Amino acid sequence: MNGRKDEDEIRALVKTWLSATKAGDTATVLGLMADDVVFLVPGKPPFGKKEFAEAARAQADSAMQFDGSSEILEITVAGDWAYLLSKLSVKITVAGEQPVTRSGHTLTILTRRDGKWLLARDANLLGPPEK
Amino acid sequence: MNGRKDEDEIRALVKTWLSATKAGDTATVLGLMADDVVFLVPGKPPFGKKEFAEAARAQADSAMQFDGSSEILEITVAGDWAYLLSKLSVKITVAGEQPVTRSGHTLTILTRRDGKWLLARDANLLGPPEK
Repeated sequence: MNGRKDEDEIRALVKTWLSATKAGDTATVLGLMADDVVFLVPGKPPFGKKEFAEAARAQADSAMQFDGSSEILEITVAGDWAYLLSKLSVKITVAGEQPVTRSGHTLTILTRRDGKWLLARDANLLGPPEK
Repeated sequence: MNGRKDEDEIRALVKTWLSATKAGDTATVLGLMADDVVFLVPGKPPFGKKEFAEAARAQADSAMQFDGSSEILEITVAGDWAYLLSKLSVKITVAGEQPVTRSGHTLTILTRRDGKWLLARDANLLGPPEK
């Protein structure tokens, strides 16, 4: 049912998201999400693009490094909407400390606006640092 | 953009889900989900209908009681797919113990099959018991 082109574009979005996050390129990451995006993470109220940008800048200032990999388990497209199920693993390094790894699944809603797929809603079940 | 009818049907599904869960009516709850449903909760691998049914039966046997309330924050419908954002609060009572409350947000994908809306993917960010 999915268009091959839509799937490819969504896979490219995920790839760009991870590489831009690793490079600390917040502007590129922000360009991959809708202005009205909503993020859900355990133990916090939902937050949007503004809070995401603030957190990303604080992380950049702290010289914290993120190196993530994502295994895409499913992409389903319905018109200008799609959802994505993935298994995410992120290695977080704070200068002078041992890196920690956090992993978990994500359920993401994407929407196509002006021909471009963007993150619209994201539930991230990343667990606590693993030993 | 949403059809009023679709929204009403999805709201009715949530209401039935909560009331059937409270009543321990597992058969009704199972009838509200697609056979290939995937549930995501923090700290566990994704699981499906079979595991859901087993857990529900174990809970029924243990005389554990669940009383949930859901605040629906958003419903967006695209053809035969929809997503739902909600704030969930569940009071869990084990016989002879003080009830505990857990709350958190959920992001749910629904799909319409044979004219009936069903749960298809569900990310549940319910937090630990609250003091």
